Amino acid sequence: MEELTRTYLEAVSDEIAGRKDALLRERFDELHPADIAEILDRLELEEVQYLWKLIDLEERGDVLIELEEDVRERLLASLTNKEIVEEVLEHIDSDDAADVVSELPEDRAQKVIQSLDNEDREDLLTLLRYPEGTAGALMGTELIRVELDWTVSHAIREMRKQAEEVETVHSVYVVNASGQLLGRLSLKRLLLTATSTRSTIGDLFEEDDTRTIKVDAPDEKVVQMMKKYDLVALPVVDDHNRLLGRITIDDVVDLMEEEAEKDYQLASGLSDDVESDDSLWELTRARLPWLLIGLFGGLAGAYVIGAFDIERFPSMALFIPLIAAMGGNVGVQSAAIVVQGLAAGRSPRDARLVPRLMKELSLALLNGTICAAVILCASLALGYGWNLSVTVSLALIAVIIFAALFGTFVPLTLDRFKIDPALATGPFITTANDIIGLIIYFGIGVLMAA
Amino acid sequence: MEELTRTYLEAVSDEIAGRKDALLRERFDELHPADIAEILDRLELEEVQYLWKLIDLEERGDVLIELEEDVRERLLASLTNKEIVEEVLEHIDSDDAADVVSELPEDRAQKVIQSLDNEDREDLLTLLRYPEGTAGALMGTELIRVELDWTVSHAIREMRKQAEEVETVHSVYVVNASGQLLGRLSLKRLLLTATSTRSTIGDLFEEDDTRTIKVDAPDEKVVQMMKKYDLVALPVVDDHNRLLGRITIDDVVDLMEEEAEKDYQLASGLSDDVESDDSLWELTRARLPWLLIGLFGGLAGAYVIGAFDIERFPSMALFIPLIAAMGGNVGVQSAAIVVQGLAAGRSPRDARLVPRLMKELSLALLNGTICAAVILCASLALGYGWNLSVTVSLALIAVIIFAALFGTFVPLTLDRFKIDPALATGPFITTANDIIGLIIYFGIGVLMAA
Repeated sequence: MEELTRTYLEAVSDEIAGRKDALLRERFDELHPADIAEILDRLELEEVQYLWKLIDLEERGDVLIELEEDVRERLLASLTNKEIVEEVLEHIDSDDAADVVSELPEDRAQKVIQSLDNEDREDLLTLLRYPEGTAGALMGTELIRVELDWTVSHAIREMRKQAEEVETVHSVYVVNASGQLLGRLSLKRLLLTATSTRSTIGDLFEEDDTRTIKVDAPDEKVVQMMKKYDLVALPVVDDHNRLLGRITIDDVVDLMEEEAEKDYQLASGLSDDVESDDSLWELTRARLPWLLIGLFGGLAGAYVIGAFDIERFPSMALFIPLIAAMGGNVGVQSAAIVVQGLAAGRSPRDARLVPRLMKELSLALLNGTICAAVILCASLALGYGWNLSVTVSLALIAVIIFAALFGTFVPLTLDRFKIDPALATGPFITTANDIIGLIIYFGIGVLMAA
Repeated sequence: MEELTRTYLEAVSDEIAGRKDALLRERFDELHPADIAEILDRLELEEVQYLWKLIDLEERGDVLIELEEDVRERLLASLTNKEIVEEVLEHIDSDDAADVVSELPEDRAQKVIQSLDNEDREDLLTLLRYPEGTAGALMGTELIRVELDWTVSHAIREMRKQAEEVETVHSVYVVNASGQLLGRLSLKRLLLTATSTRSTIGDLFEEDDTRTIKVDAPDEKVVQMMKKYDLVALPVVDDHNRLLGRITIDDVVDLMEEEAEKDYQLASGLSDDVESDDSLWELTRARLPWLLIGLFGGLAGAYVIGAFDIERFPSMALFIPLIAAMGGNVGVQSAAIVVQGLAAGRSPRDARLVPRLMKELSLALLNGTICAAVILCASLALGYGWNLSVTVSLALIAVIIFAALFGTFVPLTLDRFKIDPALATGPFITTANDIIGLIIYFGIGVLMAA
């Protein structure tokens, strides 16, 4: 589907109102589950419930997992436990099933799990045990595994059986009799190598450098590995190298996107994952905390200006916005470079703080001098007089240097203490630099007046 | 390789200094090209050149494309044209080769292209013709294609031949005699379906809904499709649906990352893709433009404050930082939500501006009222008096409302005119809101004083 237009949506709504089931089914036949989900995301709950029953049974689960979280939540709440099991969980991969179940209220989740058949229940309970944010919580158990000493023809029979459960075959994993992962067998190799009937998997298999990840590794590690080594699937093992499952690139792409959004939101002063069509209350909750920080920062600024006795030198007031803005801008720039560097996993961990600060110092000196020269000329040309112009220029250099060092130091320090360095960007750094900038500005003003 | 430590790097440097080639080769044997590139990124050019010759010839190209851009540029400058062809281009995929060649200076690129053999030269020249930012510029030509009327055994022979050129087989594409794409044949199906010797590909092949992209489609479209439909490879076709190449998920992951970094950098006031170990000059070039915008904004602010005749009401100066900061913060929050919504391709295009502005308006009223109430109480409690406290509170509501509307309106408008909406975030919005905030604040001050 190209772009989802309002016209298209209205046509769907009209067909629902007119109970035109045949037409609706026809629409859906041509669409990918992700497209159907995009349509449902934009409709009223009653419409979603009506359409749900018209979607091909095999596809309902795939549509459900593509829905936006709040739509999915409301739809799940309207389904019976039996429907959740038979229309959703039985048709989706185990990692997606675990995600769906973990979104259900605790008591409902229990009941749904009890209604699953034994094998699925075992799988799901195991997956749910892995804590959020680890490789285990990202993996699915659907994969194709063959044992080293199987004959090729036995292996192919087994693979046929296993393949019924697995939607996309990324790799065929080769294990030994105790389930330890030995490596992968490429389908290409299996297909393109001539074999005799007595060949075993061992004859075809070459030890390779298959990368694996431990089930308790943090998910940033998963992202980093799959990105660095251009992997499409990453097998997950336990401490004894036994194959437990696999993580696929599409889940990692989603995770990367969430991480990038989170950093961007923190830098923009949003404390929660919000979208423009969330409720007023959700949006306020995400935005108000940072605004209150700004508010108290502003009160602190008022205190600083008051302490300086602005009434004696009212013309100092003119450049308050300039000093505050420049401190904020420089601080955010410096912090952003550090945060991105840390996120990309650049620069070795044990060699960072001092050289980085030295570099920021020279950079700030350079930028500060240029900006101060510009402002000195402009301010003199605009007739603000030598005293004020020099005060502003000197303060500007000092503020830029301080803000750059502060903007570099804070995220690096947060990172050392294992706190998300992105917290340091956005309103936090801006507010802190506003206040310190004012102190520097009025401090220099006092010195110049003396 | 786990994490690259300073100790490891020093050991490598020592071995280079001591010409311990055997030890170095042994290290490299165990490493993935991406790991080797990570090491080279951190060494001096002479060391990189020395190590280059120790890397396995087959792997050099893969290492080169994983290097950071500036390191790659310097290394390429130190290689002869013949070395570039024989050690790099002949061993990497066509899309990567096109990237490498397009990074060379114009005259060198010409000479290198001339030294390629005919087939490679044709491929490369074709790829280089597609403009940056389109699907064509992202695609590689290595893929496996079979024709519908081939027998399965003929197809397998052909595939074996083609597979020598193709590192990872994502899909087998089925075309008709004129090269038009009909769909994919999964290796799983080919492997797991019993066939007679007279079966053709046509017997195995089921028309499927293989997604394709036009060669001139913009790369955001590529990202959106691969993400939405969880694709690992996306075939690229011309206007007549003839198969030209394929785009793989690893390139799209890189692109996504670049896009996310770019948005983040724009929001943080960095106008260029910079990393903390870029040169002072590169970093200044990325940062100075935004600082100059802030500077002229500051001068405009000084003009506003001067026009108001601050000398008569010096206590108004106290809350200048608060008003400026809050306008900036709210504006950036609003803009960020819009930019992310647009980037994620949410909300139908033809139904956005007015309802979005109405929602921002109610949100701003809510947040503004809360903030104004807080500041009124705080300001009275701190003894700033009724007149000033009421002025600040009223100005705050007005500024928050204005900043929210402005922050929503600007990126939506830029997007309508096909300008990157992320440009509207960061220093631009902050600076604009600073100035307008001051005008509102002092305007209310004049009314209150009258």
